Amino acid sequence: MSGTSVDGIDAALCRIDGHAREATVDLLAFRTTPYPAEIRQDLLHLYDDQTAAVQRMSSLNMVVGGLFGDAVLAICAEGGVASGDLRVIGSHGQTVWHQPHPDPALPYSTRSTIQSGAPAAIAARTSAPVMADFRLADIAVGGQGAPLAPYFDWALQGDASKHRVILNLGGIGNLTWLPAGGDAGDVIAFDTGPGNMLIDGLVVALTGGAAQYDADGAIAAAGYVDRGLLGHLMEDPYLTARPPKSTGREYYSAREVELIMANADLRPGDLGGDDGARQRAASVIATATAFTAESVAHALRTHLPAMPDQVIVNGGGARNPTLMRMLAEALPGVEVMPSDATGIDADAKEAMLFALLAHDGLAGLPTNIPSATGASRAVTLGSLTRL
Amino acid sequence: MSGTSVDGIDAALCRIDGHAREATVDLLAFRTTPYPAEIRQDLLHLYDDQTAAVQRMSSLNMVVGGLFGDAVLAICAEGGVASGDLRVIGSHGQTVWHQPHPDPALPYSTRSTIQSGAPAAIAARTSAPVMADFRLADIAVGGQGAPLAPYFDWALQGDASKHRVILNLGGIGNLTWLPAGGDAGDVIAFDTGPGNMLIDGLVVALTGGAAQYDADGAIAAAGYVDRGLLGHLMEDPYLTARPPKSTGREYYSAREVELIMANADLRPGDLGGDDGARQRAASVIATATAFTAESVAHALRTHLPAMPDQVIVNGGGARNPTLMRMLAEALPGVEVMPSDATGIDADAKEAMLFALLAHDGLAGLPTNIPSATGASRAVTLGSLTRL
Repeated sequence: MSGTSVDGIDAALCRIDGHAREATVDLLAFRTTPYPAEIRQDLLHLYDDQTAAVQRMSSLNMVVGGLFGDAVLAICAEGGVASGDLRVIGSHGQTVWHQPHPDPALPYSTRSTIQSGAPAAIAARTSAPVMADFRLADIAVGGQGAPLAPYFDWALQGDASKHRVILNLGGIGNLTWLPAGGDAGDVIAFDTGPGNMLIDGLVVALTGGAAQYDADGAIAAAGYVDRGLLGHLMEDPYLTARPPKSTGREYYSAREVELIMANADLRPGDLGGDDGARQRAASVIATATAFTAESVAHALRTHLPAMPDQVIVNGGGARNPTLMRMLAEALPGVEVMPSDATGIDADAKEAMLFALLAHDGLAGLPTNIPSATGASRAVTLGSLTRL
Repeated sequence: MSGTSVDGIDAALCRIDGHAREATVDLLAFRTTPYPAEIRQDLLHLYDDQTAAVQRMSSLNMVVGGLFGDAVLAICAEGGVASGDLRVIGSHGQTVWHQPHPDPALPYSTRSTIQSGAPAAIAARTSAPVMADFRLADIAVGGQGAPLAPYFDWALQGDASKHRVILNLGGIGNLTWLPAGGDAGDVIAFDTGPGNMLIDGLVVALTGGAAQYDADGAIAAAGYVDRGLLGHLMEDPYLTARPPKSTGREYYSAREVELIMANADLRPGDLGGDDGARQRAASVIATATAFTAESVAHALRTHLPAMPDQVIVNGGGARNPTLMRMLAEALPGVEVMPSDATGIDADAKEAMLFALLAHDGLAGLPTNIPSATGASRAVTLGSLTRL
């Protein structure tokens, strides 16, 4: 899979036994393959620059499918497995459009989604069956096509005696509420707001492109949280909207980064500037980091039936100690930990999800969680390509 | 399915027993549902007008899928079959981009194809499994993703003692060569050039939109073939290119219609004009009709190992007696007949093809004909969506 930040393709090689809550998922190998720079630019700007968009989408679909196929071949080589021996490949693809709500300003006002990365191109390269287009099926039965992670969380991460929240901090933040001893119908899940997207966007701009993200949260650790700016960011109407809800990369976009920088009187590259500019730039990044932490804490307090005992974090945000510290500070009395602590690799989890969705979908099991997506019913997600 | 002229959705309800050359396909019901005018406009102009193309493609995918689902429900009602009892629905969808060759002028220079009409939307409405995205699989193994009809022709229309050509005259013309007693490896198939597309385009323009096609070939019958213009049209370099080859609606487009009209000093609506304009307009349509007939005859003489004994015609062109007469005149000694004569409904055949592809693909059989598409190997076409 590849997420909203379009960094690269995460491939997880898994051994899965059993299905749904009886499943065990062992991670045999994991690897992220960065996109070639020009493909990444095209994927990021496909809906900014509409020139020849139809042709570009058509070509990108095959090119991205080929790259996903290559990622599978690489992970299989690493894990010592012939790709043709895979039972199934689960491919999320790369989202190029996701519209979870009808929008009267757009033609037909239709909920819809498009992922790039032709499953046939993956199947041709790997000689394995490919399950893909998971989100479309949920949308077709009235859901928002997101979030999908709650299926994995419900199947593998619930606890009999503790209320748990599984928090994914990718480009966007999203959580799954798993009450102690609860079942699929008790699951609540939604996007909390920004994950790393705003932080990353500010780091890229303020380093003049020298860094892509705040490694180890070091920049944010050197800054001060601007309470005024944080308060302003927390006025984001998305935060108070009631779940089920989901958001996309167009919401915490380059434009938001520009507005924040303009408000703080910052220019591109200011992290390499004089002491004052550097300090203000670090503080803006600290504030964006606090925004992610506070928006998550706000979501827990506002949209859940009770506070969780544990918050288990995966995604890139779990690797940002400053963000993890801010999250723990914003949630006194709650145990905040990376998901590695529960045996799920925090980086690989999102990719493992699609392995499980494909595995259980191949068996004909329903794999959406209607209480999370708003779907009218449980259905098997994904289309199967077997050349 | 819906073809390059984007007229409407053809739905065929079939009973299929056996597979491949042992298959029998009985047509239980057939119906064409026109597209709503505004959807048709959007589908036709998606790559002329790139405004918000990504959003429109995403929305159209769901809307068109819903319309295809409705077409299935209608044909099931007509045939007295519950849609949930269908073994499988084969959906070609509506092509919005098809690039059979790499084009160095386009990004990535990648062969690719996109059909609109989300299979999940069809499955949600019908409660039946849906096989779709047939062309992508062939392209993923090095083919042109077209033509697909040769599979149907090879399975159902070959003859032990006669050389046959199965000719489809839809928007584009395409043929399948089935030598007497031949097998799949002997099949030759390719697009011959224009089918009804140029004729239709001229009729629309010259009637000022009052007619969409030349009903019963009556307009062409009232005109004279302009040998000079016909000779000029026959210089089309596509005709001499060696198969495998395929073409698309962008090739015999509105621009070609404009050029032909400008050359003949004709303006929109001239079929309703004075006698001289009317005669010139009818003659241009007669000439376009002759162009289709002559380009087919040229293809038979140039690109086949022998002349066929029989040419069996389906698609809208089989319903144009002027075109059928011109075809017979261009092919002395060859028996030219509509495919109804061999038991295959000439209108329904293209839709029946996708029923057979889905049926045989569901059984895991290979359903492309590599000698027709140029694919490196035989594969099962289509992705299966089973909610």
